[in-house]
Amino acid sequence: MIVINKASEMQAIAKSLQKQGKTIACVPTMGFLHEGHLSLISYAREKADVVITTLFVNPTQFGPSEDFSKYPRDFENDCKLAGENGADYLFAPNEQEMYPEEFNTNIHISGVTEVFEGAFRPIHFDGVALIVAKLFGCTIPDVAVFGQKDYQQTLVIKQMIHDLNMPIDIAVMPTVRMENGLAKSSRNKYLTEEQSVKANMIHKALLNGREAIEKGIRERQEIDYIMAKELSRDFDFRIQYIASAKADDLTLPDNFKPEDDIVLLAAVYLGNTRLIDNELVVA
Amino acid sequence: MIVINKASEMQAIAKSLQKQGKTIACVPTMGFLHEGHLSLISYAREKADVVITTLFVNPTQFGPSEDFSKYPRDFENDCKLAGENGADYLFAPNEQEMYPEEFNTNIHISGVTEVFEGAFRPIHFDGVALIVAKLFGCTIPDVAVFGQKDYQQTLVIKQMIHDLNMPIDIAVMPTVRMENGLAKSSRNKYLTEEQSVKANMIHKALLNGREAIEKGIRERQEIDYIMAKELSRDFDFRIQYIASAKADDLTLPDNFKPEDDIVLLAAVYLGNTRLIDNELVVA
Repeated sequence: MIVINKASEMQAIAKSLQKQGKTIACVPTMGFLHEGHLSLISYAREKADVVITTLFVNPTQFGPSEDFSKYPRDFENDCKLAGENGADYLFAPNEQEMYPEEFNTNIHISGVTEVFEGAFRPIHFDGVALIVAKLFGCTIPDVAVFGQKDYQQTLVIKQMIHDLNMPIDIAVMPTVRMENGLAKSSRNKYLTEEQSVKANMIHKALLNGREAIEKGIRERQEIDYIMAKELSRDFDFRIQYIASAKADDLTLPDNFKPEDDIVLLAAVYLGNTRLIDNELVVA
Repeated sequence: MIVINKASEMQAIAKSLQKQGKTIACVPTMGFLHEGHLSLISYAREKADVVITTLFVNPTQFGPSEDFSKYPRDFENDCKLAGENGADYLFAPNEQEMYPEEFNTNIHISGVTEVFEGAFRPIHFDGVALIVAKLFGCTIPDVAVFGQKDYQQTLVIKQMIHDLNMPIDIAVMPTVRMENGLAKSSRNKYLTEEQSVKANMIHKALLNGREAIEKGIRERQEIDYIMAKELSRDFDFRIQYIASAKADDLTLPDNFKPEDDIVLLAAVYLGNTRLIDNELVVA
């Protein structure tokens, strides 16, 4: 696996590969790779001739009070894992390379960005859209692979690709979980051992919502109440949201229709660690 | 020449051409083609295997009081001219195709967009950046060709390409002029014959600025005064700006340095018709 730090160099390689008729899959990450990321890289390996994993902890998607500076990093281990799982290139630019002094462009997506994560992290999705557009420019992928763990992010990126007519397919891979159900996340590193055990209550709450829907409950507030009930009684958790929405656009009907795909979304603090998770209930 | 109306169809063709190793040149236009546009198409013909001209009068770059609805259109003649001058494809989507109901994305570029045209047409360059990004997504060009007539626009597009790491080269072709010096423009159609004759005073004013610089004058306000002097005395003209700026970023030093490339920019109403022009004075 070849590590590239310069955007222009990455782009020249990608352009040359495209002209040779090779297909490229891009797996954008913020590093500190876990089994979730590795499942994306393995999928990319199957889908394209060339796999480019990107590693960049993007400052523009973190709010001023968020965990940008303490976000976990382990470059050496990331290189090892990406290479072992089939990446041909690791594109790992620094901040100066992505946002030089003369940088002056923003992308704003409305609609699907305004609820859930967008409501609690106001600049987050503008930052995500911007860096993903830039990484697509550097790696010129035919397909880009994202994890379902960041469900709303996948909708935002689909919206951008649609609206800007980007010639890129999106693949979304299922969330990889610990044995106890906790979604794998780089931020799980912040949890104590005790918290890691307890954190699976978030996923259990979402599964309660799934069970309710599968039993035929379609009233949105009832589903949301069923999910919040236990979590909200435990003072170790602080819920930002745990809610159901239409899976395609995150709108909130009073009652879901039988043909609606429904997504169950949660953002919950356990101690100082903010965890997100979701379950997709296909009609 | 093949006319394409659907974005997905244009993109599929472009993608297939890229995978065959062909190079693509894109010439974005708003139609009503004149010799200026044709020089761009001819240049594109020399530079790439495949030439795609786009024709779309983009509503998002017109302000509410501007000339979107009366902007001149002549689709049949545009097809004829584009084909005769070497275009392989004419991509001519309609408004619904470019901005469907669910459209939700904006691009904003700061800095170079905030002066001159940007000051008088506040939403103009956001609209330009957006449609150009979309047209690049549909046509996947290796090179895109623009006219120097819209000088500030070329800087905005260069900024976007730089900031979003778009894998695209930009070529800027010289302004084509009438015999009397008036820059060719689709909007010249709005002028009476008498106005067309008189409109060359704008270019003459810019040439006065060039002459002053070539004589060694470097004080910005003196150059601007020399350019405005005659035009401002003629009540048929209403000047929005006629001014000198650093050519690379449109900043306004009190005195230009000997090594500065300088651009002279004008936006002037003649009757109800807004005309723009520029001269680039290379150090």
